[in-house]
Amino acid sequence: MIDPNAACEPECPVAEAASVLDGKWTTLIFRELLGGTKRYSQLQRAIGGISPRMLAMRLGDLEARGMVDKTIYPTVPPKTEYTLTTLGRSVEPVIAAMAQFGVQLQQRAINPAP
Amino acid sequence: MIDPNAACEPECPVAEAASVLDGKWTTLIFRELLGGTKRYSQLQRAIGGISPRMLAMRLGDLEARGMVDKTIYPTVPPKTEYTLTTLGRSVEPVIAAMAQFGVQLQQRAINPAP
Repeated sequence: MIDPNAACEPECPVAEAASVLDGKWTTLIFRELLGGTKRYSQLQRAIGGISPRMLAMRLGDLEARGMVDKTIYPTVPPKTEYTLTTLGRSVEPVIAAMAQFGVQLQQRAINPAP
Repeated sequence: MIDPNAACEPECPVAEAASVLDGKWTTLIFRELLGGTKRYSQLQRAIGGISPRMLAMRLGDLEARGMVDKTIYPTVPPKTEYTLTTLGRSVEPVIAAMAQFGVQLQQRAINPAP
């Protein structure tokens, strides 16, 4: 079991993970792709507010890190699909823990502590 | 158990959690405070590369969200300490999952898949 209390050196695993998850958009891309292969247009619709440029940039970064496979079908117009790799899928426990944490935040917002 | 595959509506818990964790710095502040109460100077030393302004801003945001308690001691110079609230501590499973994910990333970097 990782001791999250061990001092956070530059190469600390939490910093490593945070540099990949870096911000809301990448987290939501992971969340969508955990539901299975998605087309670019599906991702753009599912992640409200993300710009086409940001989505393309983040998908490119995840592909370069070996987290996402990109498949282009030579249809007219061409169809592009994104699938999590095995390494990419290993983010699932983080997203599940974030979902739990998010529910607690929402419950606290509904009935604040005394 | 939360279904991370359910479509991600704007109020989806993962988006909620991602808006709190938003980026590397807040994640690392949580990581440090999970180890117990820390002074501002201790946080600044432990989180390499964070600017004083960014640290103050993120701590202020976490305090406003009810995740961190700030205690100022009237010493000369005054001493300021930060402690996670119960709500703040509920992030622990996310940080622990990120630590595991980070280890997998680092292991993959050492011996890439064939």
